Amino acid sequence: MEQINYVLGYKNLKIYQDTEMFKFSLDSVLLANFVKINKKHKKLLDIGTGNAIIPLIISSKYEIEIDAVEIQKEVYDLAIKSVKLNNKNINVINADINQYYKTVETEKYDIIVSNPPYFKNNGKSLKNQNKNKSTARHEESLSLEQLFKISKKLLKNNGSLYIVNRPERLSEIICLMHLNNIEPKVIKFVYPKIDKDANIVLIRGTKNGKPGLKIEYPLITHNKNNTYTKKTRKYFS
Amino acid sequence: MEQINYVLGYKNLKIYQDTEMFKFSLDSVLLANFVKINKKHKKLLDIGTGNAIIPLIISSKYEIEIDAVEIQKEVYDLAIKSVKLNNKNINVINADINQYYKTVETEKYDIIVSNPPYFKNNGKSLKNQNKNKSTARHEESLSLEQLFKISKKLLKNNGSLYIVNRPERLSEIICLMHLNNIEPKVIKFVYPKIDKDANIVLIRGTKNGKPGLKIEYPLITHNKNNTYTKKTRKYFS
Repeated sequence: MEQINYVLGYKNLKIYQDTEMFKFSLDSVLLANFVKINKKHKKLLDIGTGNAIIPLIISSKYEIEIDAVEIQKEVYDLAIKSVKLNNKNINVINADINQYYKTVETEKYDIIVSNPPYFKNNGKSLKNQNKNKSTARHEESLSLEQLFKISKKLLKNNGSLYIVNRPERLSEIICLMHLNNIEPKVIKFVYPKIDKDANIVLIRGTKNGKPGLKIEYPLITHNKNNTYTKKTRKYFS
Repeated sequence: MEQINYVLGYKNLKIYQDTEMFKFSLDSVLLANFVKINKKHKKLLDIGTGNAIIPLIISSKYEIEIDAVEIQKEVYDLAIKSVKLNNKNINVINADINQYYKTVETEKYDIIVSNPPYFKNNGKSLKNQNKNKSTARHEESLSLEQLFKISKKLLKNNGSLYIVNRPERLSEIICLMHLNNIEPKVIKFVYPKIDKDANIVLIRGTKNGKPGLKIEYPLITHNKNNTYTKKTRKYFS
């Protein structure tokens, strides 16, 4: 069922979603807000944009040229509708990034953003029965190795890659970033409660950046009584 | 000037310190409390024990055979005095671990603990004028590369390495651990305040461990009014 949701915290932003598909999540909203853009930044790429939630939030805060790639036709169609609904100038592309990136000029982007599939596609984990959700969650069409390889090619020197993931995979992510000359510069952990282990990690890496990592102050999403904390409500109310 | 300090939180623990040398810090106390020991663990090694604060805390909580290596003779002498003062059975060894480990049997230890020097010995940073403090803070006698190489040899299969460090060096630490088949399993960040970036990181790695990292709930050390938080006072009052 198709529905229009409002991205809370962005009162003018409306987004088409299909309840059968993968809906935008806290992760994407946090990632979009983790991205820092300055006037020198001209071009941004969102890999696996889904319903374009990340470009929609970024374009409501900053002026920057945005390309956004989505492999699934039905999801791409929704993204296009949302972009039109909000009168945004976002270039949504229906393509497989693994092929598409070969056609893109080297070092085109100042910023690359991605909320990639979280789970290894090893056939062991129980995959979501729904094809759309499965593609968004499992590495069927995009592995972390591919994401970093693509980012290495498409990022300008000193350009930044922003990703969100599960803390379980952080070691793998850091080592893969190193292998691809993308230096982890800022990491922010999101803890569901002050006494719970982190469930989301936000990472900024810089192509050919100098070593030296900052672990940014934490985000605690929920109070003890399960309501959203003030900081989290900033994004959702 | 030599003085006896009480390790707060451990009312029966007394420790000799010399104000001219490197005193035990919050980092060592947090690391000692981060270590988990069970009845299967028989032998523990502390690399760069300083005044033996880590073995003293651990031996006040657990029964385990402890070896503790310290390169500096004057610091070793203080460690010996503290161990005697507390009637603990800790085997303190005055040696350079880089040489000493070659004489130790492979896979001797269930647990290795270290609060190693934090700063790269590249001649650029302003080194502490005092020789004792400088050795404890800079990688003059122990680099991270060496620490992981030594741990790889001396740890049993599935044995655990616990270290504390500055978050700035986390990427380097994770990649070096991977290179030495020590899988990062648990990481805990310590933030000085809820809205400040982390200043301490505690890491547990397992030799030949399976991938999969847990980012443990955070420790916030100070309240807004600069007093220690309740959780931190647990270690220090």
